Amino acid sequence: MRLLEERIRKDGIVKGNDVLKVDRFLNHQMDVELFTEIGEEFRRLYAGEEITKILTIEASGIGIACVAAQCFKVPVLFAKKNKTKNIAGDVYTSKVESFTHGRVYDIIVSKEFLRPEDKVLLIDDFLANGAALMGLITLVEEAGAKLVGAGICVEKAFQPGGQRIRDMGIRVESLARIKSMSEEDGIEFI
Amino acid sequence: MRLLEERIRKDGIVKGNDVLKVDRFLNHQMDVELFTEIGEEFRRLYAGEEITKILTIEASGIGIACVAAQCFKVPVLFAKKNKTKNIAGDVYTSKVESFTHGRVYDIIVSKEFLRPEDKVLLIDDFLANGAALMGLITLVEEAGAKLVGAGICVEKAFQPGGQRIRDMGIRVESLARIKSMSEEDGIEFI
Repeated sequence: MRLLEERIRKDGIVKGNDVLKVDRFLNHQMDVELFTEIGEEFRRLYAGEEITKILTIEASGIGIACVAAQCFKVPVLFAKKNKTKNIAGDVYTSKVESFTHGRVYDIIVSKEFLRPEDKVLLIDDFLANGAALMGLITLVEEAGAKLVGAGICVEKAFQPGGQRIRDMGIRVESLARIKSMSEEDGIEFI
Repeated sequence: MRLLEERIRKDGIVKGNDVLKVDRFLNHQMDVELFTEIGEEFRRLYAGEEITKILTIEASGIGIACVAAQCFKVPVLFAKKNKTKNIAGDVYTSKVESFTHGRVYDIIVSKEFLRPEDKVLLIDDFLANGAALMGLITLVEEAGAKLVGAGICVEKAFQPGGQRIRDMGIRVESLARIKSMSEEDGIEFI
């Protein structure tokens, strides 16, 4: 998606060879007009697919998912990062390893909102090692719902998550795929 | 806002005399068509006010804020619940006491995105004791920005937050104001 790539070049900040800060428009300050374009692009990519629910993960996926959901006319469900030890029996849960924060945490969704008859599109802002996306995939599997695919804004294609998940036969559509990046040479997209 | 009140009556679950679960449509599963109506109502209430930015707090405020921001055509900024002890000098920070989780946490926003020239509308899903909203107000004050007011979906008007903040001379518009509630008698709106 050229619009997103251009915005990343203009407002993204590369640190070292693997950190890309996009907090000017994507995951701290949020440009909702851009989100509308992103949502319409996901709709175009998944045209013809029946989708009944969009699943994302807190916090930075929520805004993009909600704006995209307007294009699909379906509800959003966001997986919560669990803060308590007590998990009641009425939730699906999976584990996510955060490379940024160096720890493993549980994510949960209420069983009431993820049903076997659901056809689910996953949406998130970033795909790198794929930990968060794998966690969401596990939740969909636990529910016995159909996984239609994933819509990602920025994929660091030099990290293994995207390939690993595509190798599972899961459709992953990333709007900006970064082949390589560095502070010196900037960003190269696929 | 009658639409929201009706939805709370239909899908909200009262526990005891002070807990209202609205996770079917507001803060876990999210009905974005309802969010669009909510955003348009905030726009109507704040018509004539110049607003340059919407400020909310993760996680459940983000979806409503992003959909509402489409009506205002301004960016959203969300305050992050700080996970690290190291706060760099490039953020504004304030403290929020969570009654639900029984602890105090820091919230932060980058100074880059909250400027003295900003005219800020606060948006959140709930107002009860007002702790989160007070935290956001402090961030706006630290930045030297203008606080236009707050847009709240559900106010528990029997708790002190709303009155306290209005007494500070701050405009608070709540779309559904709960006077009282109980498992036996249901919900009474103001």
